[in-house]
Amino acid sequence: MAKTFSTQRLIRFSHCDPAGIVFFVNFFEMISGIVEDWFREAVHLPFDEMHLERRIGFPIVNTGCEFYRPCHLGDTLVLELAISRLGRSSIEFDIRGRVGGDEKFRGRHKVALVSLDTFKSLPIPEDMRTRMTPYCIAPVG
Amino acid sequence: MAKTFSTQRLIRFSHCDPAGIVFFVNFFEMISGIVEDWFREAVHLPFDEMHLERRIGFPIVNTGCEFYRPCHLGDTLVLELAISRLGRSSIEFDIRGRVGGDEKFRGRHKVALVSLDTFKSLPIPEDMRTRMTPYCIAPVG
Amino acid sequence: MAKTFSTQRLIRFSHCDPAGIVFFVNFFEMISGIVEDWFREAVHLPFDEMHLERRIGFPIVNTGCEFYRPCHLGDTLVLELAISRLGRSSIEFDIRGRVGGDEKFRGRHKVALVSLDTFKSLPIPEDMRTRMTPYCIAPVG
Amino acid sequence: MAKTFSTQRLIRFSHCDPAGIVFFVNFFEMISGIVEDWFREAVHLPFDEMHLERRIGFPIVNTGCEFYRPCHLGDTLVLELAISRLGRSSIEFDIRGRVGGDEKFRGRHKVALVSLDTFKSLPIPEDMRTRMTPYCIAPVG
Repeated sequence: MAKTFSTQRLIRFSHCDPAGIVFFVNFFEMISGIVEDWFREAVHLPFDEMHLERRIGFPIVNTGCEFYRPCHLGDTLVLELAISRLGRSSIEFDIRGRVGGDEKFRGRHKVALVSLDTFKSLPIPEDMRTRMTPYCIAPVG
Repeated sequence: MAKTFSTQRLIRFSHCDPAGIVFFVNFFEMISGIVEDWFREAVHLPFDEMHLERRIGFPIVNTGCEFYRPCHLGDTLVLELAISRLGRSSIEFDIRGRVGGDEKFRGRHKVALVSLDTFKSLPIPEDMRTRMTPYCIAPVG
Repeated sequence: MAKTFSTQRLIRFSHCDPAGIVFFVNFFEMISGIVEDWFREAVHLPFDEMHLERRIGFPIVNTGCEFYRPCHLGDTLVLELAISRLGRSSIEFDIRGRVGGDEKFRGRHKVALVSLDTFKSLPIPEDMRTRMTPYCIAPVG
Repeated sequence: MAKTFSTQRLIRFSHCDPAGIVFFVNFFEMISGIVEDWFREAVHLPFDEMHLERRIGFPIVNTGCEFYRPCHLGDTLVLELAISRLGRSSIEFDIRGRVGGDEKFRGRHKVALVSLDTFKSLPIPEDMRTRMTPYCIAPVG
């Protein structure tokens, strides 16, 4: 059974557009934020250490999001992250946002490990992979 | 032969992250921007008139982006918009970003027309549709 | 002795610029955020209730910030809010940011109460004022 | 008679808040943008060359803004930059925003030249200063 990594974001004034709902671009900033939080708290690899000391990074290969219902000012948005596929260098995240039982969006977000010096892809080191594996959604079948 | 709607964005300091390249979230802000520009210039429907006077809107149903190569501070990014599918209420945009001949990203971005009073979906009116059709990529086959 | 309202913000990747430090514009987003948090938690007036139900708002009259030292990715920034002057309709906030004992910035931020229907200035109601007063820095002299 | 450096910004959906007016934080992003444009076009020093090749930067010492009237979706905001004081290492900008004859805000924005390697302040080189001087508002008296 996969673990889910979860954080909360209060929907603020600055997230909302003239229609009074979250401007979709801000959902991508929140997706970026939960990935960063997961690396720090679950993989024990804060982004400052990752980028500055280890000179590695996880640039985004592709990302996408399905928006089900609008989010409003004052909502407490629960974000949930799991891994739908863990490759040799890449990670595909399955990220959901809900307010109470009301699902607001679902994103898939793929990143891949590169050296910041050569920009070549690197295999995910075993110590990192071990901390990532519990978040993998079990393959069906 | 479909028309392409094109704009340019100079990559500024505020678009870039600590790796010195455009933070991916800002590409979605640019995608949002070219859609807004296209509504104003090609469909003759500025967003203020759309939202405030007509009380209609085009919320995002889903969006996604494939990132091919990083964009750097000082780059002049050319954005190109076409329509990959024009539905009864929905529009699927095909949006590309390139610097010179170098393709940087390709997004698909689906919006659908709703009433801002009822949040129910509405058919795209004929006068709007007529201005949109030239941007439809011809179906293969 | 005035109370200080305090929150924390972890400095994320998305806050930082190509120099690897917080882009100054994001400090204003944080100033906006602590003011919103203070209204919700200290004044018991969440922004959704303020804007949507009461139809009042506190637009910014002026704001400014002195930047002492850069903030870095991974820093835990402590934000502290007090009131330097509580007028009939206006509030002048004194807002500081520090990382440990290291002061990073100091802002002053003035807002004033208006009706969202008439955009005319309104006196701050007594129930609100009572909850605001403990945060007033005692006048010198 | 001082020269004024001027640019235009169309107020987009993404600039506006739930009250339908420009969220003040976005004015600081615009102030940052006109300063960057001025360095590129008037001083002939694009930010990529400044930061990456010359290894110098102009971090913000302090900034502030007085907001006179709200800006709305669809407005064409004219931004105007002049220099109120040109010091040995520092520049104080006077930046105004207006829509037609209607003044919207006025900012002062002080930056100072530093080495990105030592973070020590540097005198503004003569070739840069020569290109900056025409934008200095003549001292009164």
